Amino acid sequence: MSSASFNVAEEARIYLGKISADLDRTVAFWLKNSHDDKNGGFFTCLTKDGKVYDTSKFGWLQGRQIWTYTQLYRRLERFRLPAILEAAIDGGKFLMEKLKDTKSHKVCFSANAQGEPTKIQRTLFAEVFYVMAMSGLAKVTNENIYKREALEMFKLIIHWAREDDSDLGRPKLPSTGNHQNLAVPMCILSLVHELDDLDIQESKLDMDEIRSWAVDRIKMHVQRQGTRILENVTQDGQEIDGFEGRKMVPGHAIECGWFLLKEAQKMQSHELTTLAIQTFIERPYEYGWDKNEEGFLYFVDVDDLPPTNLEWDMKLWWPHSEAMIAFLMAFNTAQNASHWERFKEVTDYAYEHFVDPDQGEWFGYLNRAGKVSSSAKGGPYKGCFHVPRALLICEEILTKIVNDHEE
Amino acid sequence: MSSASFNVAEEARIYLGKISADLDRTVAFWLKNSHDDKNGGFFTCLTKDGKVYDTSKFGWLQGRQIWTYTQLYRRLERFRLPAILEAAIDGGKFLMEKLKDTKSHKVCFSANAQGEPTKIQRTLFAEVFYVMAMSGLAKVTNENIYKREALEMFKLIIHWAREDDSDLGRPKLPSTGNHQNLAVPMCILSLVHELDDLDIQESKLDMDEIRSWAVDRIKMHVQRQGTRILENVTQDGQEIDGFEGRKMVPGHAIECGWFLLKEAQKMQSHELTTLAIQTFIERPYEYGWDKNEEGFLYFVDVDDLPPTNLEWDMKLWWPHSEAMIAFLMAFNTAQNASHWERFKEVTDYAYEHFVDPDQGEWFGYLNRAGKVSSSAKGGPYKGCFHVPRALLICEEILTKIVNDHEE
Repeated sequence: MSSASFNVAEEARIYLGKISADLDRTVAFWLKNSHDDKNGGFFTCLTKDGKVYDTSKFGWLQGRQIWTYTQLYRRLERFRLPAILEAAIDGGKFLMEKLKDTKSHKVCFSANAQGEPTKIQRTLFAEVFYVMAMSGLAKVTNENIYKREALEMFKLIIHWAREDDSDLGRPKLPSTGNHQNLAVPMCILSLVHELDDLDIQESKLDMDEIRSWAVDRIKMHVQRQGTRILENVTQDGQEIDGFEGRKMVPGHAIECGWFLLKEAQKMQSHELTTLAIQTFIERPYEYGWDKNEEGFLYFVDVDDLPPTNLEWDMKLWWPHSEAMIAFLMAFNTAQNASHWERFKEVTDYAYEHFVDPDQGEWFGYLNRAGKVSSSAKGGPYKGCFHVPRALLICEEILTKIVNDHEE
Repeated sequence: MSSASFNVAEEARIYLGKISADLDRTVAFWLKNSHDDKNGGFFTCLTKDGKVYDTSKFGWLQGRQIWTYTQLYRRLERFRLPAILEAAIDGGKFLMEKLKDTKSHKVCFSANAQGEPTKIQRTLFAEVFYVMAMSGLAKVTNENIYKREALEMFKLIIHWAREDDSDLGRPKLPSTGNHQNLAVPMCILSLVHELDDLDIQESKLDMDEIRSWAVDRIKMHVQRQGTRILENVTQDGQEIDGFEGRKMVPGHAIECGWFLLKEAQKMQSHELTTLAIQTFIERPYEYGWDKNEEGFLYFVDVDDLPPTNLEWDMKLWWPHSEAMIAFLMAFNTAQNASHWERFKEVTDYAYEHFVDPDQGEWFGYLNRAGKVSSSAKGGPYKGCFHVPRALLICEEILTKIVNDHEE
């Protein structure tokens, strides 16, 4: 255990207890409060105590919750419960039958309680979470329909991302056609990982080519002599003028960091491991962690010019849950004590500020000083996803650390 | 002067001095920093000191700055300067020739420095400010082309708002087709006022019918036994379920209040005067002013459920500049001392928190506690408009109060 020959195992046991209990509370929160037994699908606009404050259904969040349920069911013994499996299947039915347009195959961003669309985004993200949901269902049910749905939509996403996105409905403007957002190759890499353990030979997709395309595209966002991850660059990896070009989202870079680390392990690439840890995890912590008031800033301008997103200095839950995964995964890869320290720092901040020890699931939005600014547990962009995913992954890694030590 | 027989005239003189000096600084800020002499049009992404941090041109803000320049030129002797007139005309040329699409007549939301569109919104607001700009130019130049442009676009806006908005490009969804946002009738009422002193007989527009339509539509947003202004209602004035239906924007209601007060004066309607002052100005102050930390909240949920806009508790400049106009106009109408006190309270807050006494123009964005959270003076939504408009109108009313007293 070289440089990490301190009390990691003992500390890991404490964090494991904390995180497992939080995962239990969090799963209970969603099981109890979010199921719409009448119309199907999941409510995500939930107050601190789980009261529904808006009955809308959100396409991203339906897909994410289904996926989360399938992961809990597959990966942790104590969640292998018929109630969780059935809720995932029922959610899948609502998502497939109500939220996906049969003609365009677009999944709506939001719908009313009955599933009638109220907003359709001109992006591919609702569809990304559709693939995750369907792939997750394919794994827990072994039914072909889910695999077919996942693969059809995945092919469409690849088409939109790499060939022609006119069907997404955004008017073609010559001066922006050349922009690339980090979210797109990142989402595709995460879908490749999702499909990795599904038998998709029949699809004739060249997954090796797709994963290396995604990694190459992600690498284009490394700028300023390898020291900064910019959210938007040109399609050939050049910086873009103005605030969109200068935008950094530390939580996003760090999330991408653990996706890359997963890929590096799969490919057994030392070079990619180093890039993931140093450039996508350590660096964004350096420029994204608020030195004065702790917590990750949401947006940072690479030249310290004024960010235009009003919420730039707020502390959101997901950069923190993503950083917990990233630093723990980095520690588990390289056994570097500094990553363990960062994991503890971020986790301690989260447990002091975001976690609700009474009702489960985290608060989502703090002001810069760390005070809860919205008492909601869920909303149009926050559902059953980042928190349980992070707690699940951290529980797995911490369990391994504890067990390794005991052997 | 009945209940206002306190030291109003003396206080008015002090506020007049403060506000006139601020208007001078603010106009100087925009004249000095925002003109793009190379490509035409106005930069609005400006730092505290006026440095351009993004060269994009924004459709709303081009139109607003042109209009503001024409108002300054027309209404205040010391701004009747060739430089201001020429800048307005040059800006108008850029807006007409670059930002308006010749086929669809849509004005883009944003463009690059050269005027090549980068984003087109599926709303009618860029076009509203286009009409204001063209009408303003028609008044200061007497040239027919501007009047023609203003009227053609105004007719299109009326068509979109009242008959058919399919050309705006939003997909028709059965479950949202019936929603009405306060901004639409409010903008139309403000355009009616803008066109009031332009000879538009040739247009054959029935302006009396349009103004009464707009006022009726605005009244539909008065809900909860006349105590609350809701931002979104159905087309027949019913509440909408969920957070969009519960949304209140106090600054917006108050801005609408002084539009209605103007209309009431025009129509000599006592009933509309009362509605404007009590329901659109006094009430939104009561539920919108932050009792603990001062300043207007940006969004408030009518049932105190969690607002979903992350910036809900921030203090933005424009609700404060609008409230300065509204309370001063209310005072000038009814001579009620409480309105004078409110005018002073809001103005004092603004001068303690938003105003930059060194460089001119206000900061735009404070956190809940009143600390500047973005050091920019302008951006994609903040240009040369709310601040100079408010200072101009307040200067005019305060001058009248001071003069009336001296007579």
